[in-house]
Amino acid sequence: MNQPPRARAAGLACGAGKPGPLNAITDVPGVTVGHCTRAEGAIQTGVTAIRPHSGNLYRDKPLAAAQVLNGFGKSIGLVQVAELGTLETPILLTNTLSVGTAATALVRDAIRQTPDIGRETATVNPLVFECNDGYLNDIQALAVTEADCHAALFACSEEFALGAIGAGRGMSCFGFKGGIGTASRRIRLDGRGYTLGALALCNFGRAGDLTLPDGRRIAPPKPAETVEKGSVILILATDVPLDPLQLRRVATRAGVGLARLGAFWGHGSGDIALAFTTANCVNHDEARALVPFQRLNDGKIDRLFEATADSVQEAVLDALITADAVTGFAGHHRPALREVL
Amino acid sequence: MNQPPRARAAGLACGAGKPGPLNAITDVPGVTVGHCTRAEGAIQTGVTAIRPHSGNLYRDKPLAAAQVLNGFGKSIGLVQVAELGTLETPILLTNTLSVGTAATALVRDAIRQTPDIGRETATVNPLVFECNDGYLNDIQALAVTEADCHAALFACSEEFALGAIGAGRGMSCFGFKGGIGTASRRIRLDGRGYTLGALALCNFGRAGDLTLPDGRRIAPPKPAETVEKGSVILILATDVPLDPLQLRRVATRAGVGLARLGAFWGHGSGDIALAFTTANCVNHDEARALVPFQRLNDGKIDRLFEATADSVQEAVLDALITADAVTGFAGHHRPALREVL
Amino acid sequence: MNQPPRARAAGLACGAGKPGPLNAITDVPGVTVGHCTRAEGAIQTGVTAIRPHSGNLYRDKPLAAAQVLNGFGKSIGLVQVAELGTLETPILLTNTLSVGTAATALVRDAIRQTPDIGRETATVNPLVFECNDGYLNDIQALAVTEADCHAALFACSEEFALGAIGAGRGMSCFGFKGGIGTASRRIRLDGRGYTLGALALCNFGRAGDLTLPDGRRIAPPKPAETVEKGSVILILATDVPLDPLQLRRVATRAGVGLARLGAFWGHGSGDIALAFTTANCVNHDEARALVPFQRLNDGKIDRLFEATADSVQEAVLDALITADAVTGFAGHHRPALREVL
Amino acid sequence: MNQPPRARAAGLACGAGKPGPLNAITDVPGVTVGHCTRAEGAIQTGVTAIRPHSGNLYRDKPLAAAQVLNGFGKSIGLVQVAELGTLETPILLTNTLSVGTAATALVRDAIRQTPDIGRETATVNPLVFECNDGYLNDIQALAVTEADCHAALFACSEEFALGAIGAGRGMSCFGFKGGIGTASRRIRLDGRGYTLGALALCNFGRAGDLTLPDGRRIAPPKPAETVEKGSVILILATDVPLDPLQLRRVATRAGVGLARLGAFWGHGSGDIALAFTTANCVNHDEARALVPFQRLNDGKIDRLFEATADSVQEAVLDALITADAVTGFAGHHRPALREVL
Repeated sequence: MNQPPRARAAGLACGAGKPGPLNAITDVPGVTVGHCTRAEGAIQTGVTAIRPHSGNLYRDKPLAAAQVLNGFGKSIGLVQVAELGTLETPILLTNTLSVGTAATALVRDAIRQTPDIGRETATVNPLVFECNDGYLNDIQALAVTEADCHAALFACSEEFALGAIGAGRGMSCFGFKGGIGTASRRIRLDGRGYTLGALALCNFGRAGDLTLPDGRRIAPPKPAETVEKGSVILILATDVPLDPLQLRRVATRAGVGLARLGAFWGHGSGDIALAFTTANCVNHDEARALVPFQRLNDGKIDRLFEATADSVQEAVLDALITADAVTGFAGHHRPALREVL
Repeated sequence: MNQPPRARAAGLACGAGKPGPLNAITDVPGVTVGHCTRAEGAIQTGVTAIRPHSGNLYRDKPLAAAQVLNGFGKSIGLVQVAELGTLETPILLTNTLSVGTAATALVRDAIRQTPDIGRETATVNPLVFECNDGYLNDIQALAVTEADCHAALFACSEEFALGAIGAGRGMSCFGFKGGIGTASRRIRLDGRGYTLGALALCNFGRAGDLTLPDGRRIAPPKPAETVEKGSVILILATDVPLDPLQLRRVATRAGVGLARLGAFWGHGSGDIALAFTTANCVNHDEARALVPFQRLNDGKIDRLFEATADSVQEAVLDALITADAVTGFAGHHRPALREVL
Repeated sequence: MNQPPRARAAGLACGAGKPGPLNAITDVPGVTVGHCTRAEGAIQTGVTAIRPHSGNLYRDKPLAAAQVLNGFGKSIGLVQVAELGTLETPILLTNTLSVGTAATALVRDAIRQTPDIGRETATVNPLVFECNDGYLNDIQALAVTEADCHAALFACSEEFALGAIGAGRGMSCFGFKGGIGTASRRIRLDGRGYTLGALALCNFGRAGDLTLPDGRRIAPPKPAETVEKGSVILILATDVPLDPLQLRRVATRAGVGLARLGAFWGHGSGDIALAFTTANCVNHDEARALVPFQRLNDGKIDRLFEATADSVQEAVLDALITADAVTGFAGHHRPALREVL
Repeated sequence: MNQPPRARAAGLACGAGKPGPLNAITDVPGVTVGHCTRAEGAIQTGVTAIRPHSGNLYRDKPLAAAQVLNGFGKSIGLVQVAELGTLETPILLTNTLSVGTAATALVRDAIRQTPDIGRETATVNPLVFECNDGYLNDIQALAVTEADCHAALFACSEEFALGAIGAGRGMSCFGFKGGIGTASRRIRLDGRGYTLGALALCNFGRAGDLTLPDGRRIAPPKPAETVEKGSVILILATDVPLDPLQLRRVATRAGVGLARLGAFWGHGSGDIALAFTTANCVNHDEARALVPFQRLNDGKIDRLFEATADSVQEAVLDALITADAVTGFAGHHRPALREVL
């Protein structure tokens, strides 16, 4: 990752847990992330893709669950995730008005890989999350194309760029330039190592409310707005075997990380967390009626709760510290947190 | 409505309540419905639009709530409806793989009417519901265009066609040709008349399970599948002032109507009901902090529950009885219920 | 069971599925049921206990989930069931104003069996459901005692009485005498036999709305009330391995059975279903972090949905057909359905 | 309030908002609080009552909603609150194993005031919340009596004691003595003053995790446990007119206050918030079908979210700073935060 120092290097580590080698969601084996960025004058937007594993997600569906902390948002796909506890496409993040295009791109990508969709077998549930980048990006232009979405999917790899990139290109956070950040934590269970990783698309927080881990509050030079709006999307990945009920409980703890940062899940902010596990995938073509699984002993789940709170908090700081300043639509500007710290 | 006899005329009336003049969701003052149908060989699909009122829905948001009876579905917009209890676009119904296109069409329509969206004010939450018409329609073709969606929106009127039309063009129901049906019930409160209306997009039910109001079970001549899949979408409109909690309770009773018909909300069926009221719209530009509104006395809500169960049951029968037989994708055929009754 | 003919014997069988040997919830291996009845003049009430297995439920917690069809009810224990997906005491059913007493009785019973509760280990979550028997029973007398609850627990066995007994003693249903009914269905998976059983505490339905499986509507001789109130509690047991998400989906289908009977889950009726599985118990003292379990392939879950709808419908008819007429509080009387059929 | 300095006086004020005159939940006009404390050797427990208004709550039901942050808890009454959006009894807080007794006490109190309950009209939904005080209190003794509950109800007044008193007598918090704390915030809307107040029953937080508003982390002298268990109950009152959907959103923000304090809503902690408004009570005997109400403009709701986060945070610190050290069951001891600060 050829970019500015990460949050941890900048002294903004959160909690006592140990990160994975990349301190990224891609420390969870099999998870990859890719971006497509559109940065051309008034167009400052993009797409970020997260692949839960490298295989066919429709045929091997990871267990998943979401928690809507504040539902002023336009994400797509959560009805089926809530009912079945699985996801079946990669996850796309983009700007609010491009979710339709991203959903269609996922549908075409799924049909390409799995030609029996909607014919011999069921249809497919695209999973798209969004934030409103309308301050820096001409969001009415609906600039994101299906090709952009496919480019982000194609770019997925273990190493990926951070900050004002991909879906994070036009995002704002606590009055600063927001964007994409990540973090991970190692978890030891029954003598074996596991990982929980978070990826944050940060577009939330009122200028002046940002609170660093040491308690300092940091305001941008010229705070503009006074309303908490925008949104934040948290994607949580783990290789610990959890069932959908447990995944929902893990996703809920994303809210802890956000609150520590000074947010209160404001009315205008669509704050949503999705957690998935790469263990226990559901085979679309399963022949057996009864399928063996593993499930975490609830008595150990606090480790995942803490890892979630810590890595969400650090992932947001990671987005803030790696994001470059951006000037975009109508000359609007967001300064980099690096300029102030 | 120049079409075959309606359910009631065919002796399939449900419950003792009195319908409105059109026995349609458009009996609720201000509600209009329009279709765009695509019937060309293997393409048998379309779009149905419901406008809750004739004004700018973004500036005057009807209160709304949904109930997911079985969430094996890909509908869009329900996260924000659940959080805020309002809708802010017309409602589009279409095939499962076209929800992205329909969402984008609603976004463009909203921006056209309300140019401050995503600039001076918030973004917009498109509301799209779907069923899988892949048996009769080449769903992989993604045939529905934004222009089709705009055509359905433009076509909205109080009188509208029923059966194998609009989003209902390619749908199947209990082994017969499904489609679009509707019904309404009058409700008297404090000496004044009100209406509850239902519109059903019917694509559910196992061949052989269809149960008529008199208890008869009706199977198609050559029952094909043995699995309950497909989906059903129920849109409920009323001018009775309800709050979002009450609207959710009303939406829940759609499940009663479906169960009476012989359905059990099968695993593969995305069964979702959305209820809205045209009373008590939320003004997007409200200046007052405290806003007067009206709310139904819960002691009277059973009248709406019964009206919902009865009109959902009858709306489905209405779709079945008005739908013509269709032959579509891969020569697949669904007979008309009229041919059997 | 020395009582009047069961629903099936009376020609009121529901659905095509095959019942277990007792056609009762106790066909699920390990499940037992017991009653304590209080029938003394104006006191016409009681307690019914369901034991999911014969061991210590606190140390081996069955997976469980509930669905609240209409939440005008006072049941106890559902917050923890929703969070953890387990139950940890027997289930008690009683009248609405006695739930506090029943909860305390379960707490004492749990402490007696598990003396480390609230000391070396956590506290305990009593699970109590209720209906309002205030028409036939002097409910203000709070007649049910902790001893009554313990008597019902002690009486648990595979064979148990039906009708106007236990918690069902004072209940009314569609204007007739209600009470306790049961049914079961066999399910074959991977070449092995499983069972789903239902127990219904029936106190719901408006006089005149009762619909028999053949479509006939049956009204009591002198219909009294015109409001659907009361409540109905459905307990669903199975030995099919389900996770809590699947159990919630199964519980939801109890609503199908109720709707077929003519109910619309009226405003004043607390309609709640709880489903548990005896497979996959969670060991309170589990030492392993990761625990193997089994989970049903969702592609087979329709069999459980149908078994639930059918056995709930038949369990209610079973309660109605086995219940004797009762005269109780203030000379109020409910006739037996047997007198009319 | 004749007790040690409050949180604010001790330099632990939270947020920039202005408290009401008492900085207490009772700053909301009509709200009163009372305690009954049982402090006798191994018995260190009690009851705290909150009356939302001084009238008959059954006949004039305040609108209410709850948010379960972590549902490892045994609270009673939330099913009906979720369905109807109202409460109809005072709220009792007590220890976990006494919820049954408290529910029965509320039932008797309701019948005494409203003799038609369960006869001419419906039954009553008692509302009881709990935490596990088993470390300091011999919880297996089930020491709380119905008379204790009635004493707490009778003691309700605008001024009330804080700290190790009432239901808070045996509670622990971040390794310190916990208990009852409170705070309030003034809110100005349309030129008129309103109030939001919080009352916290504090029994949560891992020793060493407590974080003060200035960022300092404070551990007790001899940290005992390493697991976050216990529970915390937050009661939020306001005179701002909110509907149940808005009340649920307000209750959700209690989680922000807890997260700022260093909690992560641990697995073993039953963390539940209930919010009610004294505006817009529902008249049990309402004759009109349509009832006028007021509802907050959602565009102003952030003020209530912030007031909730701030007053919950401060109410917990208020409990900690006012609580005296207690030695109870088995010689267990919890030091006072005052001894350390």
